[in-house]
Amino acid sequence: MGFELKILGANSAKPAYNRNQTSQLLTVQNEWFLIDCGEGTQLQLNHYKIKISRIKHILISHLHGDHFFGLIGLISTMHLQRRATELNLYGPPGLAEIITMQLKVSGTVLSYPLNFKEINPDKACCVFENDKLTIQTIPLKHRIPCAGFLFREKIKPRRIIKEKIQKEFSLIDMVSLKNGKDIVDENGGIIFKNEDYTLPPRKSRSYAYCSDTLYHEGIVHQIRGVDLLYHEATFLSDREQRAKETFHATARQAALIAKKADVGQLLIGHYSSRYKDITPFRTEAREVFDNTILAIEGETIYIED
Amino acid sequence: MGFELKILGANSAKPAYNRNQTSQLLTVQNEWFLIDCGEGTQLQLNHYKIKISRIKHILISHLHGDHFFGLIGLISTMHLQRRATELNLYGPPGLAEIITMQLKVSGTVLSYPLNFKEINPDKACCVFENDKLTIQTIPLKHRIPCAGFLFREKIKPRRIIKEKIQKEFSLIDMVSLKNGKDIVDENGGIIFKNEDYTLPPRKSRSYAYCSDTLYHEGIVHQIRGVDLLYHEATFLSDREQRAKETFHATARQAALIAKKADVGQLLIGHYSSRYKDITPFRTEAREVFDNTILAIEGETIYIED
Repeated sequence: MGFELKILGANSAKPAYNRNQTSQLLTVQNEWFLIDCGEGTQLQLNHYKIKISRIKHILISHLHGDHFFGLIGLISTMHLQRRATELNLYGPPGLAEIITMQLKVSGTVLSYPLNFKEINPDKACCVFENDKLTIQTIPLKHRIPCAGFLFREKIKPRRIIKEKIQKEFSLIDMVSLKNGKDIVDENGGIIFKNEDYTLPPRKSRSYAYCSDTLYHEGIVHQIRGVDLLYHEATFLSDREQRAKETFHATARQAALIAKKADVGQLLIGHYSSRYKDITPFRTEAREVFDNTILAIEGETIYIED
Repeated sequence: MGFELKILGANSAKPAYNRNQTSQLLTVQNEWFLIDCGEGTQLQLNHYKIKISRIKHILISHLHGDHFFGLIGLISTMHLQRRATELNLYGPPGLAEIITMQLKVSGTVLSYPLNFKEINPDKACCVFENDKLTIQTIPLKHRIPCAGFLFREKIKPRRIIKEKIQKEFSLIDMVSLKNGKDIVDENGGIIFKNEDYTLPPRKSRSYAYCSDTLYHEGIVHQIRGVDLLYHEATFLSDREQRAKETFHATARQAALIAKKADVGQLLIGHYSSRYKDITPFRTEAREVFDNTILAIEGETIYIED
């Protein structure tokens, strides 16, 4: 079952050079999460032929426009498409009011339930949990309250070796094996030893989304060892002072965080519109952390289990 | 001096078939007016290499998202571009609150003065006047309060015939001639008769923007004889009932209004996203009013004087 991230936009502040503002679509085992929603995100979703109706959750990191000005349009389009299934919206205080006010003035009563789930960007909290996945907020350091999101698959069941399945296995036995238990008789005596019939679970994958933030080592413990880290890199190092002043990071700083947190792969984006060519971001980051890739619109990153 | 209209988007409700939501740029004698501002308008402005900084006025007809969801993004981008000159924003009650709330949560103090000019969509009022032009609102009939806009050049000065300029003409004489007066001596006796030295003024051009609205003959008297009428045509006649229910018009109805108002040219747009091919809109309208053109993104309509 897939774990993949599609980049819909990776520019900061204002659109430039045909680069759109931040938005990403993460699908984890067929559950669809939209992360941030800059202006024009619905146009990007159309462009890449992504079924809007399948998005169940939208997470907004903070209330700078390049991360949420496309949200009200997407919510409205879902309504015009006569969506019936609920939509869960996670975001900082203020977001619900902005959305409801705009629905009110347009006389719109949504065709579907929109559930606002207010997050506290100052504290690491679990904001979502199902049987496969948890999402925790990552407190970031930005000019206004801002939270990253840590997606982590739960421990998966052990894999039963098909060739070794015995005729006498009941359904309950199969569940026991998947849960790592031996099959025992009435007195607790082992009949079938788990490790003889199963393989270890597939890997539980993880993705940390960190935008926007100053270079902030405080996040390292929380994101340690994730398979994929997206960390903003608004500037190159020659503008490190500017990055500091605007509460952003450089490509080098993003790579330093990746290195300290010992992540599998680093994905950088949120490029300032002052840069036409973004390849120097990759060059700079790779000097510190080799397994770095650039967030490019339309590209998909797959995490294998 | 030019009078031209650039189409930035002409789709209704939701973007479809690469057609963006409503927005138009009208330039009248070097004064730039943006009319409505659907999501992605700033992307369209970039795409057509239009200098955002030259827009002095933005007029919003009503608070349905396809007419204003791109406004906050454009206002923010002007700020990021460090605009210093004031921007005048005309729109119905509620708009100022929506904009200021979003600026507040993002901690943005704009780099330029943003003047909100609230309009009353129920009443024809002059909302703008300078030495060349007036803008009047046109009360429309829609599900929520909605105003069209009537742009009308003022009467222009008479044109002095260069070859006939006399050495003894003073600057004051020239102004008198332009204003249609004869040049007289101290006793009021005519020395130079105006009509011998001037040609009639160039034509005062006019443009009426009417979106969104039911078929509503009440607007005919106000827009009579305009050079160019934009009238919404969300549906074709086979969905006239649907048009009525949603307070929209058909292509045929738009043409009927154009005919009754005896306008120079009719421009239709605001196509429903259910139509992939929009040429039937033109065919249908031309059966009633021959000089009809379709609003197509990127195209410019010039009105000669």
